[in-house]
Amino acid sequence: MNNIKVDACFSPALYPVYKDDENIVVIIDILRATSAICTAFEHGAEKMIPVATVEEARVYKDKGFLVGAERNAVQVEGFDFGNSPFSYMGDTVKGKTIVITTTNGTQAIHAARNAYKVVIGSFLNIDALCKWLIEENRNILLLCSGWKNKFNLEDALFAGAVTEELNERSDQLEFGDACIALQHLYELALKDPYKFLNHSSHKERLARLNLKKDIKYCLTPNQTKVIPVLQGDALVNMLEVRS
Amino acid sequence: MNNIKVDACFSPALYPVYKDDENIVVIIDILRATSAICTAFEHGAEKMIPVATVEEARVYKDKGFLVGAERNAVQVEGFDFGNSPFSYMGDTVKGKTIVITTTNGTQAIHAARNAYKVVIGSFLNIDALCKWLIEENRNILLLCSGWKNKFNLEDALFAGAVTEELNERSDQLEFGDACIALQHLYELALKDPYKFLNHSSHKERLARLNLKKDIKYCLTPNQTKVIPVLQGDALVNMLEVRS
Repeated sequence: MNNIKVDACFSPALYPVYKDDENIVVIIDILRATSAICTAFEHGAEKMIPVATVEEARVYKDKGFLVGAERNAVQVEGFDFGNSPFSYMGDTVKGKTIVITTTNGTQAIHAARNAYKVVIGSFLNIDALCKWLIEENRNILLLCSGWKNKFNLEDALFAGAVTEELNERSDQLEFGDACIALQHLYELALKDPYKFLNHSSHKERLARLNLKKDIKYCLTPNQTKVIPVLQGDALVNMLEVRS
Repeated sequence: MNNIKVDACFSPALYPVYKDDENIVVIIDILRATSAICTAFEHGAEKMIPVATVEEARVYKDKGFLVGAERNAVQVEGFDFGNSPFSYMGDTVKGKTIVITTTNGTQAIHAARNAYKVVIGSFLNIDALCKWLIEENRNILLLCSGWKNKFNLEDALFAGAVTEELNERSDQLEFGDACIALQHLYELALKDPYKFLNHSSHKERLARLNLKKDIKYCLTPNQTKVIPVLQGDALVNMLEVRS
């Protein structure tokens, strides 16, 4: 039996180098797109349509959709939400289809859209996600959204956390160099990820915007068991698809 | 006074995202191109001409140049060397101009060729390099060659070592997220970098080729004070340029 290969890619711009359409691709944008998407499904959203540009988002808005649009960590004027997870809660989202565009996360989804499966990962759903990944028995790419195509620390940290958890759950996995590096990093950060990220560039950016509450929430594991997966042009909650 | 910015890029394919032609770019290909280049200058090579393709290298060979050509960690047939540093020693290289093409390192040099300065980094010249970088007082990008445009552990480790050393030498530096992650990684690996790299993909590749001696050599710091720098199409030893 061949080992399952797991690797990590640090930027949507580097995805073509790692691209294999037989892979499962896990999209990672911890602060805050993939955390917000998991939150919306936990709160009963029916579908989320990720779009790459603000212009596409505006077309949906004009048609009457609920639309979240964020650029440079700030809500774009004229839309219903930015990408704060706290916006994606309660009756606002329950049973709704929500369109979303963000600086980094929706770009990563767009880059990987032809993969075997595209799923959304965050600390919020990490256990459910890793359990499902092991069951699938298929090569995995952890795709970090980064910040404007550059490496960022929080997405890398989550990829390390997934590596650690997959490694604990199976001895049939073969990890690429990026995963090996990130697993070490995660072990270092484990005692206090919030403190570990204290000097990251994006955290400073968000702290200036007074988003400490968002950051703490996005780093808190296992708040949901949803696994958002791309079906056609929309994300749906896989657990509901399967049941 | 503005802080000097230091960042790291994990792949030549990602260079356009980090590109700033006012930067100093440090080219890193620890196993083995940049280690071999430092070795050649330490042994008195006059010039090295990095070329991106084997075809270009063959044109030089036909003109009578000494040419090193490596692909997939093996010497290409019909050339004088591969990229083992031990080939680039003694009278073979003294006073000579050597053309070199490798799987990864020469691609990185090619990508960054328009930067303010392109210099060659390896554990062999790390102290001399860091001392010079601080003197230059200019933004720095550490460009890891990786393996076929993917992240690799040994180049990342060296970028972490440079971050650590720059950080010790100056408090005027502002490090990007990649450097912060790599510095942590380097601190972990510091006790025994050879052991740390034990599971890296490329090390396994080289071990199959029986290159343990090369690996130990390439991980041994401060064997030379040369700083190879790109001038036009050729690398020269900066210390000789300056004196």
